Amino acid sequence: MLKDFEKKKREDKEALGAEIKGYQSTLLGQQQLLRDAKLPVIVLIEGWAAAGKGSLIKELISEIDPRFYNVVSPVVLPEADERYPFLYHYVKSIPEYGKITFFDSGWMENVVRKFLRHEITKTEYRRRVRQVNEFERQLRNGGYLVVKIFLHIDKDTQFERLRALTEAPETEWRVTREDLAQHKEYKRYMEAYDEFMEKSGEASAWYILDGSRRKTAVRDAMKLLVTRIDQGLRSGKFVGDPYYEDFPLKEMPKLADVDLSPSIDDEEYKKELKKLQTRLSELHNIIYRKKIPVILCYEGWDAAGKGGNIRRVTYSLDPRGFDVRPIASPLPHELNRHFLWRFWTRLPRTGHICIFDRTWYGRVMVERIEGFCSEKDSERAYNEINEFERMLTDWGAVVLKFWIHVDKDVQLARFNDRQNTPEKQWKITDEDWRNREKWDEYETAIDEMLEKTCTKNAPWYIIESNDKKYARIKTLKIIVKALEKACEDHFERIME
Amino acid sequence: MLKDFEKKKREDKEALGAEIKGYQSTLLGQQQLLRDAKLPVIVLIEGWAAAGKGSLIKELISEIDPRFYNVVSPVVLPEADERYPFLYHYVKSIPEYGKITFFDSGWMENVVRKFLRHEITKTEYRRRVRQVNEFERQLRNGGYLVVKIFLHIDKDTQFERLRALTEAPETEWRVTREDLAQHKEYKRYMEAYDEFMEKSGEASAWYILDGSRRKTAVRDAMKLLVTRIDQGLRSGKFVGDPYYEDFPLKEMPKLADVDLSPSIDDEEYKKELKKLQTRLSELHNIIYRKKIPVILCYEGWDAAGKGGNIRRVTYSLDPRGFDVRPIASPLPHELNRHFLWRFWTRLPRTGHICIFDRTWYGRVMVERIEGFCSEKDSERAYNEINEFERMLTDWGAVVLKFWIHVDKDVQLARFNDRQNTPEKQWKITDEDWRNREKWDEYETAIDEMLEKTCTKNAPWYIIESNDKKYARIKTLKIIVKALEKACEDHFERIME
Repeated sequence: MLKDFEKKKREDKEALGAEIKGYQSTLLGQQQLLRDAKLPVIVLIEGWAAAGKGSLIKELISEIDPRFYNVVSPVVLPEADERYPFLYHYVKSIPEYGKITFFDSGWMENVVRKFLRHEITKTEYRRRVRQVNEFERQLRNGGYLVVKIFLHIDKDTQFERLRALTEAPETEWRVTREDLAQHKEYKRYMEAYDEFMEKSGEASAWYILDGSRRKTAVRDAMKLLVTRIDQGLRSGKFVGDPYYEDFPLKEMPKLADVDLSPSIDDEEYKKELKKLQTRLSELHNIIYRKKIPVILCYEGWDAAGKGGNIRRVTYSLDPRGFDVRPIASPLPHELNRHFLWRFWTRLPRTGHICIFDRTWYGRVMVERIEGFCSEKDSERAYNEINEFERMLTDWGAVVLKFWIHVDKDVQLARFNDRQNTPEKQWKITDEDWRNREKWDEYETAIDEMLEKTCTKNAPWYIIESNDKKYARIKTLKIIVKALEKACEDHFERIME
Repeated sequence: MLKDFEKKKREDKEALGAEIKGYQSTLLGQQQLLRDAKLPVIVLIEGWAAAGKGSLIKELISEIDPRFYNVVSPVVLPEADERYPFLYHYVKSIPEYGKITFFDSGWMENVVRKFLRHEITKTEYRRRVRQVNEFERQLRNGGYLVVKIFLHIDKDTQFERLRALTEAPETEWRVTREDLAQHKEYKRYMEAYDEFMEKSGEASAWYILDGSRRKTAVRDAMKLLVTRIDQGLRSGKFVGDPYYEDFPLKEMPKLADVDLSPSIDDEEYKKELKKLQTRLSELHNIIYRKKIPVILCYEGWDAAGKGGNIRRVTYSLDPRGFDVRPIASPLPHELNRHFLWRFWTRLPRTGHICIFDRTWYGRVMVERIEGFCSEKDSERAYNEINEFERMLTDWGAVVLKFWIHVDKDVQLARFNDRQNTPEKQWKITDEDWRNREKWDEYETAIDEMLEKTCTKNAPWYIIESNDKKYARIKTLKIIVKALEKACEDHFERIME
């Protein structure tokens, strides 16, 4: 009888091995289908220390082509990365369309651990849970397949595994203090994991796998992944419907109703400019020390004077503490990701000022009008942008958005001036003329954009720029006022 | 008389201001010429603490378009960056063709400061000076205009400036301990700066400017920059001649002379594979702890079996400690920089293994044969690559290069197999067939490449891959042996 038992056991083991091999080769086949379908996949493997996340990933990737996937390790973040919003590290690593990213623990572990170690408050914890849900929903709506696995082991199993790792000299170094601390507080962690999973299943479901039997866990994970990919391939790339949340908005006038006559005389301009630049320079020092990130967004009509306006701002700033990010058409590897990705990866560090010369609002202007994205994509973008900007201001950033405004006649005069002045000709292109023809279409889109995205936390300002000097002074005043307020409120904000 | 004197002084000051304004607007005009000429410019501003580097840069950039330049700040490197070769931080930031990068202190300060603070040995200091010269020469030969300025102030001036900064509460935080230490050791620093400049003027000259009179220094720097750009524009983008240094080489056979018959039987293969993978896994742990970076380079004929070979290696590795970098055609922003830039920016951190699936050798194979670069460019590349790889091994990396070799018949059989097997069809493209037609041309190029770049520090290995299993075992053996040696020699290397 025992002999039979042993035989059965051996057979089961072989069958399991064969099953895993089968899934591995299915996955290998799926990789080309994913590529053809341009379907991106994110696999998040969370779970207890010593649950076997690393070896699970090793099995998952063992047959597939390295050109096709990417593994993100659970690095202890260098201080530099801590100076970005908490999701930055993960957003940075999302795959291109048609590829897979495996996260060897990720945003869940980050949030739970920081909360249990009292590094973030309950308020911040709730915020981050919300941000995680937003992040995952945006991914899903953008066509990403997100598979989330929690690898579970009980306390005794963890004890045995940690002991085995610690007692072998070649693996001892892998056990961190934090792993041991987690074990000692197993119950608290268990509750916290549970709570997090309950609260973060909105956009994509959690799958809990039993990590105590390694091979079975690998089989189950492979099966899950292969099945989910198969479903994804059959239903085709998902394009989400717009989703609306009521953000507190400020009311904006229609562009047509804006009075563009304000101007400033030269003497007044010089005086004001000097005063404001001096003040801005002082404020730059303070926000640098207080580590407040500042994001200034410039949008506006062609030839409205964005460039000159930006230069009057940067002139007051220490080059060590700011960057101007000119936004041109997306590069291929940017087009192949969620549209906000190229802005996420260009965010400033805390204490730095980042000036976007054109922004993510291209999605609801040029991309919408020229048909570079679907109607649904641009419709969905309003809310996605509001969420993105709330995440920035929650992080502590000052976000100001300027619409540099001129009327059609002034634009024409400036276009002609550029055309007729040799040194300025490079500033005017055929595209500018083409865009001008679509003025009315743009105006409608811009009115809608201003209406839907002028949130209280990240407001729009219409800058009347028929008189460029007036525009510069107005912009500087807004920036100075906002930074003064941010410096005053700083202590309250960090104590939230 | 005093009145006249005052008047003269005022006039001089105004004249100086007007002169600066003039240069600023010249620079503004030059920016479009630079763009048209696709000429990249690097401006390195070195000099004493409090010499006015920051405000000089502010003046230099004040009129130009932010889309057109980039300022690299003298950040204290986060620990993460210290895990890359020392030039990494600077190479990362070189401009695209047609743009300017300003370095607010750079590689000179880095080397000198680290040496004076005993963080690097004399040997390492000499190496870095050599690397700096190589870096600058490669830049110049690649058409970069490099302008190097040292902003000098004497000890008393530095004292007064540091005092003024320290005594004002809003600037106090800007004075670092290191600045004060530098002042206390003014003489030692002076000698070290002097020595460094003497040794690093080969590829591009140093300009010493007097920083004690700020406005004059700005004028002089502007004039210098504008003049140098003007010269650069007039002479057109520089294309350097090949430069040769005698690297210690290993002799390589011609591909035609390689015996491709070696094979291995199945049982032996399984046994060896298991043994080698287990050993590699152990070694991965050790190199991770010892922080030895490992760079494995794969090149080979289409269908030679690179992918499968790589997977047999990665299977033994912890996904947290390695990356596979598949190298495809360069993206636009990569094409617009020195050809090694896209490899520099993909280097592994210390302790990590990086597998390049195709490499920088594309320069002397496909780019040469398809005419994607000039004859001179690819001719120059042999030495540039040898320098690049020496820099890697000097840094402590293990660099191994594999040529995965098959004969023409075997390739044909594999192509046909791919063509006829539905699941494999994605692996074969028209390009593969086109490349095959150029087999002889490639063979000549490869023979030359193997001959000129098989350095002792970063050797090539020809892997006979008519039998893929034999090839995998041979590759694994070479890797295991090299890593064992690196672990043994580790202490000697770091004590150098």
